[in-house]
Amino acid sequence: MTDFRITILGNGSAVPTRKQHPSAQLLQYGHRRFLIDCGEGTQMQMLKYDASRKNLSHIFISHLHGDHYFGLVGLISTLHLFGREQPLHVYGPEPLEAIIRMQMRASDTRLKFPLMFHVLRNTDVIYEDNVFEISCFPLNHRIATWGFVFREKEKERNLRKDFVRRYTPGVEQMHLIKQGGDFALPDGNILKNEQITLAPSLPRSYAYCSDTAYDKNIVPFIRSVNLLYHEATFDDGMAEVAAEKYHSTARQAAQIASEAGVGKLLLGHFSARFSDVSPLLDEAREVFENTLLSKEGMTYTVPDSS
Amino acid sequence: MTDFRITILGNGSAVPTRKQHPSAQLLQYGHRRFLIDCGEGTQMQMLKYDASRKNLSHIFISHLHGDHYFGLVGLISTLHLFGREQPLHVYGPEPLEAIIRMQMRASDTRLKFPLMFHVLRNTDVIYEDNVFEISCFPLNHRIATWGFVFREKEKERNLRKDFVRRYTPGVEQMHLIKQGGDFALPDGNILKNEQITLAPSLPRSYAYCSDTAYDKNIVPFIRSVNLLYHEATFDDGMAEVAAEKYHSTARQAAQIASEAGVGKLLLGHFSARFSDVSPLLDEAREVFENTLLSKEGMTYTVPDSS
Repeated sequence: MTDFRITILGNGSAVPTRKQHPSAQLLQYGHRRFLIDCGEGTQMQMLKYDASRKNLSHIFISHLHGDHYFGLVGLISTLHLFGREQPLHVYGPEPLEAIIRMQMRASDTRLKFPLMFHVLRNTDVIYEDNVFEISCFPLNHRIATWGFVFREKEKERNLRKDFVRRYTPGVEQMHLIKQGGDFALPDGNILKNEQITLAPSLPRSYAYCSDTAYDKNIVPFIRSVNLLYHEATFDDGMAEVAAEKYHSTARQAAQIASEAGVGKLLLGHFSARFSDVSPLLDEAREVFENTLLSKEGMTYTVPDSS
Repeated sequence: MTDFRITILGNGSAVPTRKQHPSAQLLQYGHRRFLIDCGEGTQMQMLKYDASRKNLSHIFISHLHGDHYFGLVGLISTLHLFGREQPLHVYGPEPLEAIIRMQMRASDTRLKFPLMFHVLRNTDVIYEDNVFEISCFPLNHRIATWGFVFREKEKERNLRKDFVRRYTPGVEQMHLIKQGGDFALPDGNILKNEQITLAPSLPRSYAYCSDTAYDKNIVPFIRSVNLLYHEATFDDGMAEVAAEKYHSTARQAAQIASEAGVGKLLLGHFSARFSDVSPLLDEAREVFENTLLSKEGMTYTVPDSS
């Protein structure tokens, strides 16, 4: 099965501490390298955790609070200094492009590679290739903020090897069978698709929800994803502060995970006030058992549906 | 003597590496805390090296290449989140203020403290209090870039204790004597100033020159400073590249130090290509013996003239 995993480069909230870096994650799917958020110091975190910077192709910025994007301009500058030539796509709310371009102008930098900005404005599919797609949807935060769902497309059925060996179907025939077609034998008999193929694995999916208040409106967008990263800035005792600041508690993150019927919940965006975040895990597990605390530098495989 | 020292928070050039952070220095003079340049991650470096962020009052940005200021917006945001109320003064070339304000607007942040920008346009004294002053002067770099000299003002003469004990001069008299005045005895005789005072220590000074091509025009501005931080991005073998990129070699930094008759030279802004920078030191010492390599996290006392 194709590698599908997330490396946490930073999972702290607003103020960096000795232990916590601001939000950034590297998503790997096969050869694809996508960055989700890019707080200050992300390029150094990529160095620290051996995440290649030059293979990055797309960067997704959830919103324009500094702890989610202040590292973007530095990363772009470094890619330029490395002599990058291949395009880099950046997705984010306005005025992200203006902010970056202004700083490029101030340093009299003419980028050696095409830097393509894509403004997030509506719930939409924002990336698509033959096997993978990415969509965005609105979160509930103090300023315009977007969640992202990264998912495999529906896969083709797999041809049974014994069938291929025995009947040696042509290329065009194999293509049709993978799409669900049957196979006509020379004698006019039909082999039904389910006799000659195996069901593919179910498409896997990952959702990123940071930052957001507790809001059931996001549930339809993340329903049944295999792995959900949801912010848990505060704990139960601070539910009022969380609501006021448009953040969530760990219990609320678990409630969303439960409502959405996700496979696994990964908590992050912890407030700097917690020297120990394990109580957040206990709190979330009371509501949704399959919960983990994200850890900086750790890589999480997106589980399949089995 | 009042503490006068520099802590190196970062001394790497353009591209951060595992070992090198971009330019930033903390200058301490008595209770004063000034930051010189503020590359990406400076606020984390301040945490790492126990440099209080809240006591900062003035920040001096030499130029708008990212490795000298991309950490500024994050530092300002953190000070805001800490609830800072006292003013923060930022000195730098245009359009630094526009860059910062645009990012504050994008996050809908209304700073809780006055953020005062001062545009660097001319060679000038840019800061002055009763005992300390700071001036800026142009360096020779690809974009508008400023060097800074931080210096103690001329000090008053010190009253000899035996004189004070014996003649108990009044407050106004003591003030005049410290300025160089003589003392009239009741019998009409005069005690000359040099009989009743001791010469003060000579004012100490520190100059920061990064980034710049080798350029003798800066010598008059930094003449006789006690400590000179001068960039040494390249080595002897790369003098042509250095000139092309408006940077200096270690030997050239030493030539400037020698011409200017400074007390001590501190090299920095090392290219990421050097895994070992000690050859830069050897090269510089051939021209100017009293040279040191700056080391991240180290604090250097500005020596006096003795």
